[in-house]
Amino acid sequence: MNPMKPSVGVCYYPEHWPETQWADDAQRMVETGLQWVRIGEFAWSRLEPQPNQFNFAWLDRAIATLGQAGLKIILGTPTATPPRWMLEKHPDLLPVDQTGRVRGFGSRRHYDFSHLGYREEAARITRVLAERYGQNPYLGFWQIDNEYSCHDTTLSYSAAALVGFRAWLATRYSTIETLNQAWGNVFWSMEYADFAEIDLPNLTVTEANPSHWLDFRRYASDQVVAFNQAMVKAIREFDQNTPLLHNYMGRTTDFDHFKVGNDLEAASWDSYPLGFLEDRSEDPVEWKLAFMRQGDPDFQALHHDLYRAVGKGRWWVMEQQPGPVNWAPFNPVPLAGMVRLWGWEAIAHGAEVVSYFRWRQAPFAQEQMHAGLLRPDSEPSRALAEVKQLAQELKQHPDFTTKPAPVALVFDYESDWAWTTQPQGKTFSYFRLVFEHYRALRRLGLSIDICPPSTTDFSAYSLVLVPGLMAWTQSLKAALQTTKGLVVLGARTGSKTRDFQIPNCLAPDCPELINLKIAQVESLPPSYTEELLQGGLIKNWREYLSLPQDTSILLSNLKHEPIAVRQNKVIYCGAWLDLEGYLQLLEPLCHELGLTTIRLPDGLRLRQLGQGVVAFNYASETYDLSLLTGFSFDKTEVKAADLAFGRILK
Amino acid sequence: MNPMKPSVGVCYYPEHWPETQWADDAQRMVETGLQWVRIGEFAWSRLEPQPNQFNFAWLDRAIATLGQAGLKIILGTPTATPPRWMLEKHPDLLPVDQTGRVRGFGSRRHYDFSHLGYREEAARITRVLAERYGQNPYLGFWQIDNEYSCHDTTLSYSAAALVGFRAWLATRYSTIETLNQAWGNVFWSMEYADFAEIDLPNLTVTEANPSHWLDFRRYASDQVVAFNQAMVKAIREFDQNTPLLHNYMGRTTDFDHFKVGNDLEAASWDSYPLGFLEDRSEDPVEWKLAFMRQGDPDFQALHHDLYRAVGKGRWWVMEQQPGPVNWAPFNPVPLAGMVRLWGWEAIAHGAEVVSYFRWRQAPFAQEQMHAGLLRPDSEPSRALAEVKQLAQELKQHPDFTTKPAPVALVFDYESDWAWTTQPQGKTFSYFRLVFEHYRALRRLGLSIDICPPSTTDFSAYSLVLVPGLMAWTQSLKAALQTTKGLVVLGARTGSKTRDFQIPNCLAPDCPELINLKIAQVESLPPSYTEELLQGGLIKNWREYLSLPQDTSILLSNLKHEPIAVRQNKVIYCGAWLDLEGYLQLLEPLCHELGLTTIRLPDGLRLRQLGQGVVAFNYASETYDLSLLTGFSFDKTEVKAADLAFGRILK
Amino acid sequence: MNPMKPSVGVCYYPEHWPETQWADDAQRMVETGLQWVRIGEFAWSRLEPQPNQFNFAWLDRAIATLGQAGLKIILGTPTATPPRWMLEKHPDLLPVDQTGRVRGFGSRRHYDFSHLGYREEAARITRVLAERYGQNPYLGFWQIDNEYSCHDTTLSYSAAALVGFRAWLATRYSTIETLNQAWGNVFWSMEYADFAEIDLPNLTVTEANPSHWLDFRRYASDQVVAFNQAMVKAIREFDQNTPLLHNYMGRTTDFDHFKVGNDLEAASWDSYPLGFLEDRSEDPVEWKLAFMRQGDPDFQALHHDLYRAVGKGRWWVMEQQPGPVNWAPFNPVPLAGMVRLWGWEAIAHGAEVVSYFRWRQAPFAQEQMHAGLLRPDSEPSRALAEVKQLAQELKQHPDFTTKPAPVALVFDYESDWAWTTQPQGKTFSYFRLVFEHYRALRRLGLSIDICPPSTTDFSAYSLVLVPGLMAWTQSLKAALQTTKGLVVLGARTGSKTRDFQIPNCLAPDCPELINLKIAQVESLPPSYTEELLQGGLIKNWREYLSLPQDTSILLSNLKHEPIAVRQNKVIYCGAWLDLEGYLQLLEPLCHELGLTTIRLPDGLRLRQLGQGVVAFNYASETYDLSLLTGFSFDKTEVKAADLAFGRILK
Repeated sequence: MNPMKPSVGVCYYPEHWPETQWADDAQRMVETGLQWVRIGEFAWSRLEPQPNQFNFAWLDRAIATLGQAGLKIILGTPTATPPRWMLEKHPDLLPVDQTGRVRGFGSRRHYDFSHLGYREEAARITRVLAERYGQNPYLGFWQIDNEYSCHDTTLSYSAAALVGFRAWLATRYSTIETLNQAWGNVFWSMEYADFAEIDLPNLTVTEANPSHWLDFRRYASDQVVAFNQAMVKAIREFDQNTPLLHNYMGRTTDFDHFKVGNDLEAASWDSYPLGFLEDRSEDPVEWKLAFMRQGDPDFQALHHDLYRAVGKGRWWVMEQQPGPVNWAPFNPVPLAGMVRLWGWEAIAHGAEVVSYFRWRQAPFAQEQMHAGLLRPDSEPSRALAEVKQLAQELKQHPDFTTKPAPVALVFDYESDWAWTTQPQGKTFSYFRLVFEHYRALRRLGLSIDICPPSTTDFSAYSLVLVPGLMAWTQSLKAALQTTKGLVVLGARTGSKTRDFQIPNCLAPDCPELINLKIAQVESLPPSYTEELLQGGLIKNWREYLSLPQDTSILLSNLKHEPIAVRQNKVIYCGAWLDLEGYLQLLEPLCHELGLTTIRLPDGLRLRQLGQGVVAFNYASETYDLSLLTGFSFDKTEVKAADLAFGRILK
Repeated sequence: MNPMKPSVGVCYYPEHWPETQWADDAQRMVETGLQWVRIGEFAWSRLEPQPNQFNFAWLDRAIATLGQAGLKIILGTPTATPPRWMLEKHPDLLPVDQTGRVRGFGSRRHYDFSHLGYREEAARITRVLAERYGQNPYLGFWQIDNEYSCHDTTLSYSAAALVGFRAWLATRYSTIETLNQAWGNVFWSMEYADFAEIDLPNLTVTEANPSHWLDFRRYASDQVVAFNQAMVKAIREFDQNTPLLHNYMGRTTDFDHFKVGNDLEAASWDSYPLGFLEDRSEDPVEWKLAFMRQGDPDFQALHHDLYRAVGKGRWWVMEQQPGPVNWAPFNPVPLAGMVRLWGWEAIAHGAEVVSYFRWRQAPFAQEQMHAGLLRPDSEPSRALAEVKQLAQELKQHPDFTTKPAPVALVFDYESDWAWTTQPQGKTFSYFRLVFEHYRALRRLGLSIDICPPSTTDFSAYSLVLVPGLMAWTQSLKAALQTTKGLVVLGARTGSKTRDFQIPNCLAPDCPELINLKIAQVESLPPSYTEELLQGGLIKNWREYLSLPQDTSILLSNLKHEPIAVRQNKVIYCGAWLDLEGYLQLLEPLCHELGLTTIRLPDGLRLRQLGQGVVAFNYASETYDLSLLTGFSFDKTEVKAADLAFGRILK
Repeated sequence: MNPMKPSVGVCYYPEHWPETQWADDAQRMVETGLQWVRIGEFAWSRLEPQPNQFNFAWLDRAIATLGQAGLKIILGTPTATPPRWMLEKHPDLLPVDQTGRVRGFGSRRHYDFSHLGYREEAARITRVLAERYGQNPYLGFWQIDNEYSCHDTTLSYSAAALVGFRAWLATRYSTIETLNQAWGNVFWSMEYADFAEIDLPNLTVTEANPSHWLDFRRYASDQVVAFNQAMVKAIREFDQNTPLLHNYMGRTTDFDHFKVGNDLEAASWDSYPLGFLEDRSEDPVEWKLAFMRQGDPDFQALHHDLYRAVGKGRWWVMEQQPGPVNWAPFNPVPLAGMVRLWGWEAIAHGAEVVSYFRWRQAPFAQEQMHAGLLRPDSEPSRALAEVKQLAQELKQHPDFTTKPAPVALVFDYESDWAWTTQPQGKTFSYFRLVFEHYRALRRLGLSIDICPPSTTDFSAYSLVLVPGLMAWTQSLKAALQTTKGLVVLGARTGSKTRDFQIPNCLAPDCPELINLKIAQVESLPPSYTEELLQGGLIKNWREYLSLPQDTSILLSNLKHEPIAVRQNKVIYCGAWLDLEGYLQLLEPLCHELGLTTIRLPDGLRLRQLGQGVVAFNYASETYDLSLLTGFSFDKTEVKAADLAFGRILK
C-alpha cells in the first residue's frame, strides 16, 4: 500500500519565471533534497492561448529540465482556471452564488460543475495533455484539477444546475409522488405535479424543505464526482499507468471526498496549519493565541487520517505551508522548526510525499504575500533549511509502515450537509463534533483511523466511534455488529432517515445495536453548560433518553439523568460533551480494551505506530519527556516545535 | 364579551397522517380534555390539487371524525401557502425583498399583499370553503390565513407594490405638490412632477426620505388590512354567523393589528416563550440564561394584553409552545410545569382558549424538530400531562372575568414604523421602549390594558402611559384630556407631525396637556448611562426640556437638570430610563392613585383581577409567598414553574 | 496665501423657508458675527424645475437679501442632486454598487462619475449659473458639487464605468501584453487577449488580482478629478476671477483629494467631530466614551493639516458641527464650549473661514434631526451663543499666520487603495497607520504638515515621516534625499512597485535612502502584542529585517531582534507600534533635532505657531497649565472644552 520511502517535494510554476532560471531552480531543488515537483495546474492560458492553438514547447522544456535534474513530475491538469476565451465559447459556464449573482472571471474556479459544455472542454484539454505527456519518463503522477470546492464552488445556483438537478431527481425518485412523499411536501402545500416545477432551494421566503436542500447537496456533490470521473476517463484514454490524485483543500466538506477518491489511485491534501487556525477554527481566541505560530495540534492530524482513508492508504500532502500565507485574516510567521515538524507529522501518519507550496514566492498577483521556500529575490526563506533537514532525516530514518490504528472514527459527508441544513442549534457543526471526539482521542495519546460510512469491516479495531451520523445504511449497521471491540454512538446518530425524516422508531434508530429511544432533544446556547456527575460538562446539545431497565449508566448529570449509557458492547452518548467529559467517557473504555492511554498536555501529541511512537511538541515551551510514563524516547526533553522518537514500554 | 368558559385546544393536520389514525387521535384529544381543534390552514394543495379541481372528501371526513368525537373546529383558510400551480397562473405573485431579489416558492407566505390577482385567488378558495363548511355543525371559528407578516412579508418591493403605492399616494395627497410639501422634497431636490415618478424607498444611494418610508409602510400595512377584508367578505357571502379570527405572530409590528382586528370577531396570537426569548429579545445574555427554560416573565403577558385589545375583548392563544421549537438560534426544553403555567397566564389575562401547537410532532419537512403534545411515534411528550392538568383545573376553577385594568398603556404601530425608519440612535426601538414601561408596571404587581391610539375614552383608568408616540391625533388628545387619573407622556411622544416633520411648536406638541418644549435631544451609546438624583439611570435617549416656571420636577440628573416633570395631571418623562428609574417615576404616582403595588423579584409576577390575584413563578427556585405583603394565597410558597391563587387583603 | 482675517460663516437654504423670513435670517446672521453664507448646493429642482425651464428669480432675491445685509456668498453648484427628470434623459446615470445593484433616486449623489452624458448635464447647469452669478457683487466663492465620494459613490460598477475603465487601461498600457505583464496575469491563467475582455474587478469567484483592483481605483479617482475639471472649465467660461473650492468629507479616501485640489483655488472640509468619533473611529469603546461629547482630540486636526495641503495653503471648514447630528449610530449633545473650541482649533490650523452647518434645523426630510444654530422654531440653539463668542474673539485676536510646521507627514491616497485592496492583515488600515503616527506627534505637542507624495522639497522640515507608502516615485526619493533633517520610513513603505508587484530588491526598495531588505512580514491578530525592549508594543504588523553590519538599532524586541533601525539620517521602523512605542521612537529624534516636545495627557493638545501656542482642552476636567513646562499661558488653568493662548518659553 505504501510502496515508496517517504520523500519531499515542491510546487513550481515554470511559466512564472524566465526560462533561463529553470535549470538553476532545478539544481537547487535537488540540492535541498526534494524528489518531486508539481507543475502545470494553472497554466491553461499558456498551453492553449487561443482555442485549439496549443503551445507545449515551453512545458516540454520545463519537464525535461526538471526531470533531467533528477526530479519526478506531478503534472496538474489546468481545468481550475479556464482561460478568458472560454467565456466566449460558453458564456454560461460561470457559477452562481446563493443570492443569485453570477461569479465572474478574474480569479479562479470560475466554472460550474453542472455545466456539461465546460466538462467536455475540460476533458478535451486533459486528453491533449495525457496524449502528449502520458508516456513521459519523468512523469510520476497526474493531479486532476486543483482544490475542488475551494471558494465555495461546489454549490452553484445556475441554470445548468437547475436542469441537472431536476434530471437527477427524476432519476432518483422516478415519480413525482415518490418525491413528494420522501420530502413530506404535504407540509405547507409544497407538493409538485412535475419534476419541472422544482426550483433550487435558495431564495425561498423562509427556509426550504431540508429534504430539498439535502438532495440538492447530494446532486452538487455528485457533479464533482462526475466531473472528476470525466477527467479520469480522459487521461486513461492515453495513459493507463500513471497514478492519479487530486489535492483536496482542508476543512472542505461540500462534496463527498470518499467518492472522488474511489476513482483515483491516491489522495493528497493542502495543509496550511496557521491559515486554518486563524480562518477556519472554532476554538476560542486564547487557544488560537497559544498556537498562533504552530497551528492546532490536532487539526492537521485529523486530515492526515482522513485522506489516508480517502486515498485508500496512499496519500500525500501536496501543499505544505512554508511560512506566512496570504489568505487568513492574520498571517503570522511560524515558530522556527514548525515547517519541519509539520512534514514529520504527515510522514508519521503515512504520507508518501510532503510537498511544499511553493518553490519561490511570486512577486505578482493574488498570492504575492504567500511565502515560498525562496523569497521573491531568490534568496532562501527560513523554511528552506528546515525542508532540507527534513529531507536529510527522512533518508536516514526507517520507513514508517502505517498499520491500522486501534481506534476507528466514522466520518460521513452527508451528515455534514444534513446538520448544516438543519442544525437545530446555531453552534451545531458536524465537523466540529467529530473533531472534538478526535481531539479527545489524541489527548489520550491514541492513533486513529478515519473511516467512511461505507466501511464493511471494523474487525481490526478495538474501539469504533460514530458520532452525529445522520442516517444508517444497512451495511454500516452490519459492519458495526461484527465489531469485536466497543462501539460508541451519538450524539444525534441515526436521528434521520436517508430522506431527512425522523425515523419511525425514533433515534438512534438501530435496535440491532442498542435498544433505546431519544424522547426529546435540545440545543443549548454558549452561555449554558451542565455538569456531569463524573466530571466534565454538557454543552451545545442534550438528548433525553428513554431506556429499558437493563441499561448501564456511564455518565449522568447532577440530577442522575442518564447522559451516556451502555448495552453490551455498544455505548450511546446523548450529549455533546466538553473535552473532560469525553475523556471521562473514553478513558475507562480504553482501559477495558487494553489500549495504552495517557493524558497529554495542551501542546504535546503522540503518534503511536505499533510499538513505535513519535512525540510532537506544538507548545512554545520545552516538554520533559520523562513525564510520559509508559514510553521511552531518544531524548529526555523535546523543545518547542521539535519531535522525539521512542517506543511503548510494555 | 367573554361568553365561554376558558378551554384548551390543539392544532392538527389530518392531511399529514393516515386516515386510519384520525379517530384515535380525536379520542385521545378528548381524553386530554381538549375542546377545540384547528385544522386546514396549510392544506390548499390537498384541497385543490389542480386549478379548480377540488378534493374536499378527506376534509369532510376529518371534520366529521373530530366533530363526532366532541371537538369544535377552527377551520383555517389555506391562503398562506398557495400551491405550486398558482405560479403558473400568476408568475409575478411572489414577494420581493428589500435588495430586489424575488422570494421564491418552496416554503410559505410566498405571496405579495399588493398582488390583486392573488388576492382574488385567495378570496376564491375562501368562498369555496365558506360555502362548503360555513354551516357545518362542528365549525366554531374561522381562522383567516396564518401569521400575516411572518418572515418579513408585509413589506415587499415588487412591481405590484410599486403600482399600488403610487395609486395609494395619489389618493392620499390628490396633488403631487401636496406630497412634495408633506414630504419636504425640496430637500436634496427630491421633488416629483408626477406620482408616476415615485419609486419604492429601497435601494436609494443613501437613506430615502423618512416620509417616503413611512408612507410606504402605511401603504404596506393597508394592503394586509385590505387582503384580510377581502377574505372576510368572501366568508360572509356564505356564512354570516361563524366568528372570525386571525392568528397574529408575536413580536410582529409591520402592519397595524388593530386595523385588521377591527374586521374580525376575535384575535388570537401564537405564543412561543422560549423561541421569543432566544430569538427576539433584546435583553442581556444573563437574563436570557436565567429564563432560558421559562421564557421572559413579561413578554407573553404584554402580548396577551395587546391581543385582548386587538380582539376587542375576545382573544385566544392559537399556538402555544409545548416543548422545544425548531426556529430559534437555540431551542431548549422548557422547565417542567411551564407548559401548564403559560396556559394559565393566558387564561388569567382573559384568553377564551389556549390551543397548543401541535398535536403530534411531524417527522418530515421544515418543522420536524418542533415538539408536539405527542412524539412522532405517537407516544405522549412530557407536555401532554401538563395540558391535561390544565384542562382539568380549568373545569374546576371559576371563570376569570376580565375587567379593565387600572393602568392603560397606549401602543401605536405607526410609531414603531416611524422610529424604525429614523431611530436617531441605533438602539432606539419603539417596541422595546413600550416593553420596558410594561415591565416596570409588572414589577410593581400591576395589571395593564394595552390600548390603541384610537381609544376615545380612558375614564376607566387611573394611570395612562403614552411613551414614544410619534404623532398626535386630535381624538387621542381629547381622550387623554378627559382622563380622571394621571397621564405619563414621553420620551419622544408627539415629536413628529403625521407627515413625519418636526411640529411647529416642537415636541411634545400638546399644549392641551402639557406646556413645555423639547429644545434638543440626544441618543446615547450603550457604554454611556447617566445617574438620576432619585435613583436609577438614563440610557439610550435623553431630552433637554425647556420649561415654564410652575413645572414640578419629578426626576432630575445629578446636575439637577429636569428629566421627568409634572404639570397638574400630566407627567412628561424626557429620557429612556432603566428599570429602577421607571420604578422611581411610577411608584409614587401609583401611591397617589391608591393602586396596590409591590416590588416583585425578577422571576415572580402577579395578575390582579379585581380583588383576586394569581402569582406566577417564572424563576428556577421556590418563592416564599409570605413576602408578598398585602396579599393572601392558597399556599405558603410557590414552586418553580408553578402558580398560586390569592386575593388582595385590603 | 492667507489673505483674509479668519472669519465665521454658515450654511443656509433659502429654498427651505418662506421668503418673508429671509431678511430676518440675514439680519440675525450678521448680528451673530457671521460673514459668509453658503447657499444653493442642493437646489437644482428649484433652479430648473423642468429641463431647460429655469427659475432664478428666487435665487436672485435670496442673494440680494443676504448680500445687502452684509454677507458674502459661497454659491454651491447643485450637481450632487440631479432632479428626478434627469433620469428620463439619462436612465443609466445611476451608480451601481459592488454587488451589482443599481442605486436609485430618492436621496442624493445618485450619479455615476463615469457617465459622460451626466457630466455634460452637470457642466451645463454649472455654465448657466456661472453666467448668471459669476459677476454678482456678493459672490465670494464657488463651491463645486458637494462632498464627492460621500455614501461610497466614487466606486461604481456600472456599464459606463466598464466602458471607461477599458479605455483608460488601453491608454495606460497601450498593448494588452504590457497589461498582462504589469498585472502578472500569467498567474491563474488570467491573461487577456484584448482590453475588451477585461471586466470590473467585483463579483469574481474569489479575490481579483490586486493590480486589477488598484487600476480600477485609480480609474475611479481619475473620473472624480475629470468631473471636477469639467465643472471648473464650465465656470471659467463665464467667471475667471471668483475662487473655487470643494467641500471634502472627512475620513474619505476613495479619490485623490490632492489631484482635485490642484484644479481649485482652495480646499474646504466638513467637520463633524462627534459623528466621526461614533461612526468612523477605530478606537476602543473606552476612548469613544471619554470623548463622546468632544470628539477625538486629533482627528479634526489631522484633517485640518491635510486640507491645508490639499488647498495649497488656502482652506476652510465648510460645515462645522453645531450640535447632535443625525447620521452616526449615536448622536450625543456636545459638551458646552466645544462648538467654539472646534472653530478655534480650525483657525489655529490656518482656516480662513469656519462655516457652521446649518443656520436653522430643517423640520423635514432626511436631516430633520441634524441640529442647526437655530432650532426649527427659530429659537437659538445653544450653539448660537458659542458661535457669536467665536466671531467676537476672532475680531479681537491677531491673525494666525500659518508657517511650515517642523514635522512633515506624507499622506498618499494610492497607498490607502493598495492596502485596502490587499491588507494582508484584517486590521491593517493605511489611514489608521498614518493617524497613529500623527497622534504620537500630537501627543508630543508638535505641529505637523501633511504633505502629498508629489512634494519635491522637504527642506523646511526637521523631521519627515513616510509610513506605509505603497510605492516610490523617483521624485519623492529625490525630495527626501535633499532633506536636512531626519526621515522615518515604514512600516511597509516601498513594499510594492506601482504595478502592485513586490520590488526586485524587496521592500523598502530605496537603496538611495537606506540599505536593508525586508526578508519577511507578518500580520498579527488583535489578541497578540509583542513588547519592545525600550518600552511600548508591536501590534498588527511586524517585519523581519535583513541588515548590513553598520546599522544602528533604535528599537528591538525582547529577543534583541531589530524593529526600528537607522542609517545616517534615515530611520526605518519595521512594525506597527502602539502609542508608547512611537513615542519611544520619535522623542529622541525630536530632541536630537532641537524640537520642543512634551508628553501631553489624553485630552490636552497644543498647536505651536512659531513662538506662539494654543492649548485645547478636549477632556471633561480642568487642566492645570503649569504642568506644561516650557510654555507660558494667559491663564493658569484651562477648563473642559476651553482653550488658552501662550508662548514657548525658550
